[in-house]
Amino acid sequence: MPHPTLYHIPACPFCQRLEILLTLKGRRDEVDFKVIDITQPRPDWLLKKTRGTTALPILETADGHIIKESLVILQYLEDIYPERPVAQRDPWRRAVENMLTRMDGDFFSQGYGWLMNQDPARREALREGMLNQYAQLNDFLLAHSPAGPFLFEEFGWAETVFTPFFQRFWFLEYYEDFALPMDARYARVREWITASTSHPAAQQTTQEQVVKLYYDYAKGAGNGALLPGRSKSSMAFEPDWHVRPWPPKNKYEHSATDAELGL
Amino acid sequence: MPHPTLYHIPACPFCQRLEILLTLKGRRDEVDFKVIDITQPRPDWLLKKTRGTTALPILETADGHIIKESLVILQYLEDIYPERPVAQRDPWRRAVENMLTRMDGDFFSQGYGWLMNQDPARREALREGMLNQYAQLNDFLLAHSPAGPFLFEEFGWAETVFTPFFQRFWFLEYYEDFALPMDARYARVREWITASTSHPAAQQTTQEQVVKLYYDYAKGAGNGALLPGRSKSSMAFEPDWHVRPWPPKNKYEHSATDAELGL
Repeated sequence: MPHPTLYHIPACPFCQRLEILLTLKGRRDEVDFKVIDITQPRPDWLLKKTRGTTALPILETADGHIIKESLVILQYLEDIYPERPVAQRDPWRRAVENMLTRMDGDFFSQGYGWLMNQDPARREALREGMLNQYAQLNDFLLAHSPAGPFLFEEFGWAETVFTPFFQRFWFLEYYEDFALPMDARYARVREWITASTSHPAAQQTTQEQVVKLYYDYAKGAGNGALLPGRSKSSMAFEPDWHVRPWPPKNKYEHSATDAELGL
Repeated sequence: MPHPTLYHIPACPFCQRLEILLTLKGRRDEVDFKVIDITQPRPDWLLKKTRGTTALPILETADGHIIKESLVILQYLEDIYPERPVAQRDPWRRAVENMLTRMDGDFFSQGYGWLMNQDPARREALREGMLNQYAQLNDFLLAHSPAGPFLFEEFGWAETVFTPFFQRFWFLEYYEDFALPMDARYARVREWITASTSHPAAQQTTQEQVVKLYYDYAKGAGNGALLPGRSKSSMAFEPDWHVRPWPPKNKYEHSATDAELGL
């Protein structure tokens, strides 16, 4: 039987969700991963599959259907590989993880919005907004899972959804000097983040990779777009990020050249 | 065994989703509906249940748990009342309806954003944006269900999610003279809307109720907020909307008084 094929972008948090889920299920090798270069226009054969949309990941099922949206693909993989369930099966427990999952959009937007901000005057408000997001997660976890570290007994659906964001937000530590304050207000969510980001199934990226690839995002250019004066995106596949220098930390001043970024 | 209790707002489309689902399942009488007056501050006992949030509907389960978010509540009801399934059970079909369901947020925002707009200069762009939403639904239905009228054989999950919006958007016909053009571009989505809004399980509201209750929204005041010079919201329970006159159609000129609205 042919395998499903996942078209993905290496540093994309939505794509990583699927890798985590498949790893938890021991099925990582039963899906073919095809890497798409975000810095190039989408190829025609891919646009034909998606009927024109450019967002990734998409999954092509074994019988040739196309599924879009990471959460929809997650559910599909959960359904076709039911062994080692990742989603909760009890209706109330499933509702709890679904409520937490629905907080993902605001959390993502706040973090990426802050990263891409170019106005130093807005930094403090963006930091406050980010702290508010963490506080909401903290409150939810205290209400539904005070003992921790995960929402339920094991790393599960909610962790699969959020961990890629926790790892991407390492770019806020680097480019915005953000650190979650060490006080009780955030203790429960910090415990969740620590346990989730260190879980063996979620080791698809590192702080170094995130910081290097997301430099252009930090300068306001998302989705592989080119900044003025540059010939290559920091999201480019070559040169490999391992061999590039760490980018300048201060995103509000100097704009690094291709050469300074090792591109 | 005690029943679940649903705290809801009568004209709220998200609440109507739950009524439709329960009606499809023949379980409408097994959930207690408690009406909340959107024009009054949320009572303390309700805020205690929600841990401070004001969005409705919420469901209190038979054993006293609180579930927020209409789509999460829908899934919970689908899980505890599995007979007469409304969601698809096949993984690919479920993925198709989940993809369509995820288009609900943009569709809702476009329709309500246009209704609440107060700047005549923006009308044409808002109309275009609305048409674009319908075109996207049309394309999705043509790709996945060309024969129609529903996404699958029967009125199901996707129809439960979207029909309350189709019925609310009657306010655009009244206050914005919006009509979906009678051409092939929108033929498939029009067929879907017609079949969905006329389904026996989705008759919880009428155009007259929607138009009368949403007058203040059309003037820019959402969620039961009071407009200047008014003492009562058009969302008020009393006087009953049946006995009120139809509001003025031109929302960009005269602002109707309480008396003119029969309040």
